[in-house]
Amino acid sequence: MQNSEAISLSSSDFRHAISLAGKCIERNNKTIPTLSMIHARANGVFEATGTDLDVLVSASVPRAGSAEATFLIPDYRSIIGAVKAGGGSDVTLEPAEGKFALASDTLSVEVVSNIAADDFPLSGQLIAHDEFTATLSHEQLRSLRRIAASISKAETRYYLNGIYLHHIDGTTFRAVATDGHRLSVIDLEIPDASGALEGIIIPRKAIRLLLEMIGNKAGAADPGIAFRVGTGMLRNREDSTAPERKGVSRAHFSLRAGNASVTLATKLIDGTYPDYARVIPSESGRSFLFKSAEFRRALEAVSFGSKDVRAVRLDFDSEGATVSAKYVSGIASAVRISCQHSGEPWEVGFSGSHLIDMIDAAGGDEFVLSAADATGPALIKNPADPDWTGVLMPCRL
Amino acid sequence: MQNSEAISLSSSDFRHAISLAGKCIERNNKTIPTLSMIHARANGVFEATGTDLDVLVSASVPRAGSAEATFLIPDYRSIIGAVKAGGGSDVTLEPAEGKFALASDTLSVEVVSNIAADDFPLSGQLIAHDEFTATLSHEQLRSLRRIAASISKAETRYYLNGIYLHHIDGTTFRAVATDGHRLSVIDLEIPDASGALEGIIIPRKAIRLLLEMIGNKAGAADPGIAFRVGTGMLRNREDSTAPERKGVSRAHFSLRAGNASVTLATKLIDGTYPDYARVIPSESGRSFLFKSAEFRRALEAVSFGSKDVRAVRLDFDSEGATVSAKYVSGIASAVRISCQHSGEPWEVGFSGSHLIDMIDAAGGDEFVLSAADATGPALIKNPADPDWTGVLMPCRL
Repeated sequence: MQNSEAISLSSSDFRHAISLAGKCIERNNKTIPTLSMIHARANGVFEATGTDLDVLVSASVPRAGSAEATFLIPDYRSIIGAVKAGGGSDVTLEPAEGKFALASDTLSVEVVSNIAADDFPLSGQLIAHDEFTATLSHEQLRSLRRIAASISKAETRYYLNGIYLHHIDGTTFRAVATDGHRLSVIDLEIPDASGALEGIIIPRKAIRLLLEMIGNKAGAADPGIAFRVGTGMLRNREDSTAPERKGVSRAHFSLRAGNASVTLATKLIDGTYPDYARVIPSESGRSFLFKSAEFRRALEAVSFGSKDVRAVRLDFDSEGATVSAKYVSGIASAVRISCQHSGEPWEVGFSGSHLIDMIDAAGGDEFVLSAADATGPALIKNPADPDWTGVLMPCRL
Repeated sequence: MQNSEAISLSSSDFRHAISLAGKCIERNNKTIPTLSMIHARANGVFEATGTDLDVLVSASVPRAGSAEATFLIPDYRSIIGAVKAGGGSDVTLEPAEGKFALASDTLSVEVVSNIAADDFPLSGQLIAHDEFTATLSHEQLRSLRRIAASISKAETRYYLNGIYLHHIDGTTFRAVATDGHRLSVIDLEIPDASGALEGIIIPRKAIRLLLEMIGNKAGAADPGIAFRVGTGMLRNREDSTAPERKGVSRAHFSLRAGNASVTLATKLIDGTYPDYARVIPSESGRSFLFKSAEFRRALEAVSFGSKDVRAVRLDFDSEGATVSAKYVSGIASAVRISCQHSGEPWEVGFSGSHLIDMIDAAGGDEFVLSAADATGPALIKNPADPDWTGVLMPCRL
């Protein structure tokens, strides 16, 4: 069945590459059929690319043979399912006019496609000129999980829909996320940073895809992520009267995911990040030291095991604290926890799910909550980790 | 905190009992608030009961102390979540007028309830007179999984919405399920059967709950299930002119689930089961022997890994068979499989998901499909297991 024009590669590499490229494809895209497809290109390697026009992911894996071809793969999830169920260690792809054939062991699939591969929007994310380059470790990228929950989803404040990254001092860079109710900050050391980075906003989707691709497991060898920020290729047309766009507009991340070389290219959010620093309170005022696991379990208990925890009340007395919640269904619950503090009896309320997210992000066995009063922002710190900071607005009781 | 009126039991027993009782509660019941609650009763044991008026489940677990009480537990899923997250090995329940308190280790929950426990419909499922009693093993009950997928969900043919169980010969009883497109039969040996069983229809929900409760693990010791069929307690009122209802109308199953003694009581479906025997073809005609795992994988491959497999085509030639499917999205796929047969080339179509269900139900390494022609029912048998029979109607190609 195989001929000289066939592209051959391992079944698991094929599935891995198209599933990585598919990560940025929006399931509910109906208006532009091309954006639901994977762009496949065989030259020295097999390269699969997917895009939603804002974010583009390319994954390259090794291949056998020398035939070169470019074609589109529709319905990639079905193709992955079929190849996986069909078994066989290798797949063979044979593109032809208006269709392509896929074969593996006993399986043969023929896919008709009436869209030309040239129609795929490949070039929109290219960087014409690097303004800033750096190398992040997988571990550093993974640490962005500790602030990602604070990224806003409100479309009206689109400039909060990402992580703000900017230069602080020396080789220290700060990543910030906030949705107006909570704010998280983490500082990263990037010794090989080169060029200027006044401040960029990396969209939530790019962050989510990168975190999915590197996974949770810290590998023995951390291959690192090449990170580039620059201006896009697309310039104004010569007859345009619009002002020339300035500043950086694109970021690229290049990394290894298993057997694949991946590039994620994203547009940056074009907006002004608010002056977040004035929201972070000082550590003066009331200060409370909690055991993280005990507090977290108390929050789950008063929220009846649900992740969707409503407002919880903290009552501090001389012996510790009570975490409590009341529900419309007529259930009221309370849990006693230990808490070290030196202040007067006091009470304050927070969103329970935000508190759980913050405790998870703080990490460690203990955390400190500091607040000047019950209406202003509260500071959350892990005493063992000065690089991370959480800020949470209280709820009315 | 604990007083002499408190009911105390292990936290895991408490959660197990109310989660078993909750299994028959319909989540979307809004009209009768009592039916979303668990009826709790402490006498010698702690007994939790739930019902949807057709099916009732009671679970009893050991308790400490002697206080007796009856009360209702609203929102049992939240209570389970809270008790689990709150930790502690025991729970203490203190019913009072219009509310009850629950405490475990550091957790305290107060539940307000404005419905009296007497309003709970406990008695509807009692059997006044046993017509038939028997003991099933857990293994025999579990074997009903092999026919349960064939139970109809069509409300218009309500008499197909369950498993038909009837006496065949000696100590052999036959369980049947069909939805008009497929039919499955399994024969059970019940040596201690006592009384007459002309034929009952056990509703799908009761079968599903029983299968959930006994789980998949075959235990070393099989404690058995006491099975009773009889007439209900509710008689016509004296001034009623309706004809007195005849025949059996209720079934009870008593079993052990972990540390709990469980009784499931169900109404039987009041209807006439069709004469299914005339649908079962003889094994004459064309006969094809397949390797089960190979055929199953082929079905998954042509359905692109989805469980929701559409019509598949089987083409038999002198060397084996091809399983194939065509999709509107322009993808056509085919898989070659081995098949022993001695007939002419032939083709036939089936619902892929029904075929997968049948292969799973047949069990074993091989199965035989026999058919007289491509429009009549096909017989599916596992050569190693004469007790099970599957029948499948073909699709038009």
